[in-house]
Amino acid sequence: MNYSFSDKVTGLKASAIREILKFTAFPDVISFAAGNPSPEAFPTEAVKEITERTLTENPVAALQYSITEGYTPLRDTLKKRLLAQNSYNADIDDLIITSGGQQGNELSCKVFLNEGDTLICESPSFIGSLNSFKSYNVNLVGVEMDGEGIDLEKLEAAVKSNKNVKIIYLIPNFQNPTGKCMSYERRKEVYKLAQKYDVMILEDNPYGEIRFEGENIPSVKSLDTDGRVIYVGSFSKILAPGIRVGFVSAPKDVIQKIVVCKQVADVHTNILAQIIADEFLNKYDIEAHLEKIRGIYRAKCGLMLSEIEKNFSKKISVTHPQGGLFIWATLPADCDMMGFCKKAVEAKVAVVPGNAFTVHEDDPTSSFRLNFSTPADEQLVKGCEILGKMSREMFD
Amino acid sequence: MNYSFSDKVTGLKASAIREILKFTAFPDVISFAAGNPSPEAFPTEAVKEITERTLTENPVAALQYSITEGYTPLRDTLKKRLLAQNSYNADIDDLIITSGGQQGNELSCKVFLNEGDTLICESPSFIGSLNSFKSYNVNLVGVEMDGEGIDLEKLEAAVKSNKNVKIIYLIPNFQNPTGKCMSYERRKEVYKLAQKYDVMILEDNPYGEIRFEGENIPSVKSLDTDGRVIYVGSFSKILAPGIRVGFVSAPKDVIQKIVVCKQVADVHTNILAQIIADEFLNKYDIEAHLEKIRGIYRAKCGLMLSEIEKNFSKKISVTHPQGGLFIWATLPADCDMMGFCKKAVEAKVAVVPGNAFTVHEDDPTSSFRLNFSTPADEQLVKGCEILGKMSREMFD
Repeated sequence: MNYSFSDKVTGLKASAIREILKFTAFPDVISFAAGNPSPEAFPTEAVKEITERTLTENPVAALQYSITEGYTPLRDTLKKRLLAQNSYNADIDDLIITSGGQQGNELSCKVFLNEGDTLICESPSFIGSLNSFKSYNVNLVGVEMDGEGIDLEKLEAAVKSNKNVKIIYLIPNFQNPTGKCMSYERRKEVYKLAQKYDVMILEDNPYGEIRFEGENIPSVKSLDTDGRVIYVGSFSKILAPGIRVGFVSAPKDVIQKIVVCKQVADVHTNILAQIIADEFLNKYDIEAHLEKIRGIYRAKCGLMLSEIEKNFSKKISVTHPQGGLFIWATLPADCDMMGFCKKAVEAKVAVVPGNAFTVHEDDPTSSFRLNFSTPADEQLVKGCEILGKMSREMFD
Repeated sequence: MNYSFSDKVTGLKASAIREILKFTAFPDVISFAAGNPSPEAFPTEAVKEITERTLTENPVAALQYSITEGYTPLRDTLKKRLLAQNSYNADIDDLIITSGGQQGNELSCKVFLNEGDTLICESPSFIGSLNSFKSYNVNLVGVEMDGEGIDLEKLEAAVKSNKNVKIIYLIPNFQNPTGKCMSYERRKEVYKLAQKYDVMILEDNPYGEIRFEGENIPSVKSLDTDGRVIYVGSFSKILAPGIRVGFVSAPKDVIQKIVVCKQVADVHTNILAQIIADEFLNKYDIEAHLEKIRGIYRAKCGLMLSEIEKNFSKKISVTHPQGGLFIWATLPADCDMMGFCKKAVEAKVAVVPGNAFTVHEDDPTSSFRLNFSTPADEQLVKGCEILGKMSREMFD
């Protein structure tokens, strides 16, 4: 039969970049296209120990239906942790466990935005979140970044010129895809602007804990005096993504609405996974574990940057992230970025074309994203050699 | 600050029945209000063995990001199983793993319905699904049932008199809350009607495998010659609900759209849980396990029915389910059902008032739901004695 799908999903097209990404499954392709944490960073033994103990001592708690808000001990643990990290306001805020940070972003959008309302994001930004917002038929408006984060003037212009602006979506730490970190000054200015125009801020922070260089910058949430910031965190990068555990910290009234939406979405998050997350934070040395992960990523990022420096055409500029998983490379404006990406995959190196991350796939961009966390060291070296040779031939 | 929530969630009110349900958490209250499978039915040792082995032999597969469609071996296993059960059409259909059956229902709605489009359901029906549909601001229309399932004439009238009817939502086996099973004849007639008016059918079947009496009736999906039925299944009742694993079997084109929506909802379902489900189906004697569960529920349902027969006022009629978890009790129309439920909880027995399951909470109903799967046997006996005494005092 002929299916008549909703407007929400007819707008969500299979992306042109899928053509490139599907090559990454081939074993002879070096993939710089992933967004996966390094498997070396998974605390496998801890997960195994917690799981065995839980299924021996209290299997029913791990297997029965549970409450939508999330496993109570994990919520308490996270509240304490976030309070210490200054992004939790014990008087105003509350917390819900979600099935990954992705669900936190999606439900925040569902709770606040009607079809046609405006959500402003950094451009480029994380494709998963953008598609999630698009799936609610919202008016998605991208605002460029400079070296300190989202451009303030352009942000203000966007807030003023769009109808029903409800949320500003930000990834302040080691943004996906650019690897950029928003300065403390900029965070304060953006918060002030949100106050001025009475807009909510959705702060997505999956990478904040894997800063491997420089000083920590307080979250936007830590500046929140009037309950305007929804803070989304994740265990995907500090524990493991396959368990699908994230959380949202926000004012109680907002959390209550998210709870209602989560209940109809998936009832609750896998309970064994929540127990694993809680016990890992409480019974293991999480700080030592984070130091280990940061060490792995510091080394991998450093290796990729030095290989880029050694091999790439000088016409390609790259970001120098202080954390996270990604480097953002930019060709001169007149170069054929998509052609470069296609040629790269033919030469068995996959990168993600920048228009995968723009608000509209045909927005102009001459950038592409490189991931350093997933490839093995020898792949990082070999892949950069191949891309470097190609870039010198194409652009020098 | 004052929050301006979306129309979608302002419509989702905290239910009046919450007032009753919150008493079920008190340890001295006998709860007939749950929808939980019996913990005795969980294959705890199998879950433990599979988990230990997986985390020893292949931890990275269980912890890394995975594909949105779901763990490939589990999808293959389910396709074979559904093909054998006659509800999978290998030529037309495909399959996606979801985070519980709830997500399958929610995403099916998101994929097909614009705000204002009509979805028709049995009335009463499962509150979780109804709220999920409401959260997309669809026009929800309930159609009464008779002893064979949804009333055909009223269904046709509803299809004809409502605008943009896209989906008929059915729980044909041991419906929640009524415990009713739709006859084979009725399934065929409903399918024909859906063909006549070119409407999709969403067949939700969480309880089908726990038939403890009578002969299996083929699914509506098994009648599907033109790709009009979306079939939602679940591991919550045959394995354990805490793992949150369900699935959708539907035409490939539909599954593709659900994949896009699931990707933006939670990326993929917890992968360890999917491995547990797959290995449990393949490496354990699932049929013996199902026979064990059916035995437990047959005994519990029989016990509750005989205690009702022994104790309840004869003015209360009840359904005699051949499977599932629920009995539906109906008072004479002139009785105060809500008053009865409130009095019951004061007497330390919780039941769910019928208007928890009507399309609109103020739709008239004189029924309430009893769950027999969760309480221990002595609770079943004692709770029925208390309700029985109350009912005789109130109605005889």
